[in-house]
Amino acid sequence: MKEIQSSKNPLIKETKKLQQKKYRQQSQTYLLEGFHLIQEAHAADVVLKDVFISQRGVNEWSDWIEENLSEYYLVSDEVLKHLASQPAPQGMIAVAEMPQEKEIDFSGAWLLLDNVQDPGNVGTMIRTADAAGFSGVILGQGSADLYNPKTLRSTQGSLYHLTISNADLTKIIPQFQQQGSLVLGTALDKNAKEYLTVEKTENVALVMGNEGQGMSSAVLALTDQNLYIPIKGQAESLNVAIAAGVLMFHLLK
Amino acid sequence: MKEIQSSKNPLIKETKKLQQKKYRQQSQTYLLEGFHLIQEAHAADVVLKDVFISQRGVNEWSDWIEENLSEYYLVSDEVLKHLASQPAPQGMIAVAEMPQEKEIDFSGAWLLLDNVQDPGNVGTMIRTADAAGFSGVILGQGSADLYNPKTLRSTQGSLYHLTISNADLTKIIPQFQQQGSLVLGTALDKNAKEYLTVEKTENVALVMGNEGQGMSSAVLALTDQNLYIPIKGQAESLNVAIAAGVLMFHLLK
Repeated sequence: MKEIQSSKNPLIKETKKLQQKKYRQQSQTYLLEGFHLIQEAHAADVVLKDVFISQRGVNEWSDWIEENLSEYYLVSDEVLKHLASQPAPQGMIAVAEMPQEKEIDFSGAWLLLDNVQDPGNVGTMIRTADAAGFSGVILGQGSADLYNPKTLRSTQGSLYHLTISNADLTKIIPQFQQQGSLVLGTALDKNAKEYLTVEKTENVALVMGNEGQGMSSAVLALTDQNLYIPIKGQAESLNVAIAAGVLMFHLLK
Repeated sequence: MKEIQSSKNPLIKETKKLQQKKYRQQSQTYLLEGFHLIQEAHAADVVLKDVFISQRGVNEWSDWIEENLSEYYLVSDEVLKHLASQPAPQGMIAVAEMPQEKEIDFSGAWLLLDNVQDPGNVGTMIRTADAAGFSGVILGQGSADLYNPKTLRSTQGSLYHLTISNADLTKIIPQFQQQGSLVLGTALDKNAKEYLTVEKTENVALVMGNEGQGMSSAVLALTDQNLYIPIKGQAESLNVAIAAGVLMFHLLK
């Protein structure tokens, strides 16, 4: 255990850069905030390069720390606050190594995100895909970064339970189809079917689109069938993560 | 049209106080940010006391302004930023009067929130309740304020399409039951039923609980039946707004 009191410490300065995507990509590392996410990452054999813990955190999680960490930095509250993206950091922040992307095996149910931009939506959809029994989530072009602190927080650790990949959807959708998956889009075109009419299928890929614009025309042109959720009240639309939840639980019910 | 250039203007200082719940309750007014929400409020006959618009906003929405506003304040970008809760305000902010609470008529489907604390969750659940065909939403004790800017933004205007009331759930639930509604809770107790086994019922009240703790024991003791959503993957739980979405669309499908 080493101590760091000042946020001007060179390691802290380097670490803080990981709040920016550019540095995360360069170093292939990212920040994990809070005990729950760090515990989930460790349980999934993610390599934790550096772990920064406040005195309060050391007191609270002493058993887990002793059992699982060979070393860590005891840092002042000021340092922890400096590294955190939230106003009230939760006592522990770690630098984690990005994994090699797992191979997509195309079996089971997959969620494909076409330009879903809000990190909270992307993270919540990964968490929901996990709970609904999906095999993985593919982040298409324009989608929020998986390693954005808000995305990570919203996943509640589910990113470690599924295969998560980045891919160009116009290239990956034909591969799903070649492997026998039914590729379902979400749109209100005249050939779209009400989602309740779609029966459970073994292998399926569900595409959700951008918060404002929906799916891109290039991706829409590739789907086997498009679904819609009937809106009964006066709402114009559903939040994309809610729509994804309703559809995912229906498809695998 | 009057002009205000400085955020030190007394009206602007007074208006800014409405970012705090205390002043909203005192004055029975609240802030609406962005053209879409203001338009929805106006269409629902909400009284707009003051409307502040930037030059960009005046140019963009000139037809609507001419047709619908008898007067407004042209304000500098600095003033608009000062009044907004978001870093990039959308050109228009209004002070709206709170309506008298509508009577709860107990018919149809109702969503009851027991200490749901996140404004984004509460707003999204109101939007989803609207889309699913629910009659109203009751904000129980401890739930986020309807007039918090984040709640309002997440509703996307659906607060004007439904009856929204504040009530003590332990008092209102027996009234729902007396009127013949089935009151469904959400919990993982040993008598809970998988949600898919519940058939559509005419009059129903669905209770959702706090993000971390779930429903309070006092409210749980009053429900007719509790439901759960089976979790298939390794996720520990669903986001409360996602769970509400899955349940609401199932109950009124």
